[in-house]
Amino acid sequence: MERLNKWLGSIGGLDEKAMEEATRHQDQLTKPRGSLGRLEELACHIAGITGEVHPDVGKKRIVLFAADHGVAREGVSAYPREVTAQMVLNFLNGGAAINSISRAVGAQVEVVDIGVDADFPEDQGLVERKISRGTANIAKGPAMSIEQAISAIAVGVERAEDAVQDDVKLLGTGDMGIGNTTPSSALYATLLNRPAAEVTGRGTGVDDEGLARKVQVVERALSVNRDRLTSPLSILAALGGFEIAGLCGLVISAAQNRVPVVIDGFISSVAALVAIHLKPEIQHYCIFGHLSQEQGHRLFFKEIGERPLIDLDLRLGEGTGAALAMSIIHAAIETHNGMATFESAGVSGKEE
Amino acid sequence: MERLNKWLGSIGGLDEKAMEEATRHQDQLTKPRGSLGRLEELACHIAGITGEVHPDVGKKRIVLFAADHGVAREGVSAYPREVTAQMVLNFLNGGAAINSISRAVGAQVEVVDIGVDADFPEDQGLVERKISRGTANIAKGPAMSIEQAISAIAVGVERAEDAVQDDVKLLGTGDMGIGNTTPSSALYATLLNRPAAEVTGRGTGVDDEGLARKVQVVERALSVNRDRLTSPLSILAALGGFEIAGLCGLVISAAQNRVPVVIDGFISSVAALVAIHLKPEIQHYCIFGHLSQEQGHRLFFKEIGERPLIDLDLRLGEGTGAALAMSIIHAAIETHNGMATFESAGVSGKEE
Repeated sequence: MERLNKWLGSIGGLDEKAMEEATRHQDQLTKPRGSLGRLEELACHIAGITGEVHPDVGKKRIVLFAADHGVAREGVSAYPREVTAQMVLNFLNGGAAINSISRAVGAQVEVVDIGVDADFPEDQGLVERKISRGTANIAKGPAMSIEQAISAIAVGVERAEDAVQDDVKLLGTGDMGIGNTTPSSALYATLLNRPAAEVTGRGTGVDDEGLARKVQVVERALSVNRDRLTSPLSILAALGGFEIAGLCGLVISAAQNRVPVVIDGFISSVAALVAIHLKPEIQHYCIFGHLSQEQGHRLFFKEIGERPLIDLDLRLGEGTGAALAMSIIHAAIETHNGMATFESAGVSGKEE
Repeated sequence: MERLNKWLGSIGGLDEKAMEEATRHQDQLTKPRGSLGRLEELACHIAGITGEVHPDVGKKRIVLFAADHGVAREGVSAYPREVTAQMVLNFLNGGAAINSISRAVGAQVEVVDIGVDADFPEDQGLVERKISRGTANIAKGPAMSIEQAISAIAVGVERAEDAVQDDVKLLGTGDMGIGNTTPSSALYATLLNRPAAEVTGRGTGVDDEGLARKVQVVERALSVNRDRLTSPLSILAALGGFEIAGLCGLVISAAQNRVPVVIDGFISSVAALVAIHLKPEIQHYCIFGHLSQEQGHRLFFKEIGERPLIDLDLRLGEGTGAALAMSIIHAAIETHNGMATFESAGVSGKEE
């Protein structure tokens, strides 16, 4: 708890002065004021996050946390549990969607084993930080202990600090964990105070029967853990996953280090939501990448008053939506820093 | 007319076989089927356009047509008319928004003077294809003759063919022309059969008074030209602009050459709409990049049954929305061509 309070304590608001200067700069660029819409907002937002009027987002990194879930044994996923470990190897070999998209947008992918139920070969670039070989089954009790939750958050904090050391200027969140929409739905239900059915969707593609079972499993998880749902940290420990806790730590540390962090879809957003419940100012440091097709994600955005950057019917996770959004953010910063001003280009202004 | 019919004559449908093979390929990649949403649709669509199961969109080019408009003298724009020429120089110097965004997404920018009321220095990379120094005032008569319209379309065709020769695999449309939302609104009103007020917006930012004047100017243009509004070509000549006609030619030739063309915002979409009215199959070759804030663009999408890729509140033109969309398209093709299959990666499939 002391560690957690130390991370949270130094997080403050955006740099208003940098944002004002960035806005003034935008209004001098050779375009009608406001005509670049959300690109202008993004540039000024990132100026506020970083405190730099002309921020740099050149070096980008998706940090992808992988973990297994005890609740996967309840038949809540369309895929077998061993796919988590198989996909970790696929990430390391560059064969997954997040690898292709990151190549396209010029981002690095870091893969962190924070709780996969498998052993991996060394020297393949995997960051090995296993807390345990998967969580316990939330339908029968808490996913993890409070100590494990803090340890998993600490892994995320460490990975963000490592990125800062490496001069990464734009972080993105990624997840892999068969079954992980179920703990996410349980967390949304608790943190947004909604019935399980409203925030539980088909994940990677369960059928109607599977969806009904999933809703029941979420309800059982909420019921069996109800005495533990008293604080953001104890809620995370009771209902979460190791990758969700790791992502929560990444988001916390990004805010602490004033690095913009692009939040991927349904899983990553609930990790950000836990962080925001721990410290509301953290929301200012998040850029919400995309709207997932997963039921409940739209509700999340309504509740927190944010509008995701893109909406391409994705429902994959891995950080794919965050990586795609990075190309928009990159373009926003490129226009902010690279465009001529009316004066420098000799272009006449608006006739008032 | 003979030339136009020759360009249009050879345009057919998408390659269904390539699309089916591309869809089968998508279903073998290491992700739940359909979980990449519109990225999957884009990859299969481009397979159908190009006839290649594994298309290449590596070399990208925005072709930006600039021209002046007689109707700008009616006070329909917030900017003075000389800004068209000033912005052409800004494009050539790399200082405009389209230059920055194209750098961010790895696209070339080609600037074509198809009717600017100014002389430009040589050897700065401008493609000089001036039809005339701006159109006539549509509020008083036709914008151009039928012969001029065909000549402007021919310029667009030529620029697409030049791009094909240069091995460009993904085209994008861009426009510059102070006042050009007014002829565009007149064209939308005619082609979508809607009242002027429904398809006329604030452009680069006119106030309420300016907007009311703009609607009246569009109504006068429709009235004074009413006898000429009999075919897509004569409508284009009566109400259009040289850059709109050039873009129309670019889209026609992209379809003829089976090269995907990313349509930018309000101006580019009306050029595509003219092309689609000339030959409906042309719509299959268009990828609609973004939803502009300009009133009427949403109505356009509803009418033609398309959904733009991104919605970032842009209202600038220049090809900025098309260039941003190119990064999404690039990622779609990168996943399609670069991802591992379930078999090659040793990942278990869905439990049926």
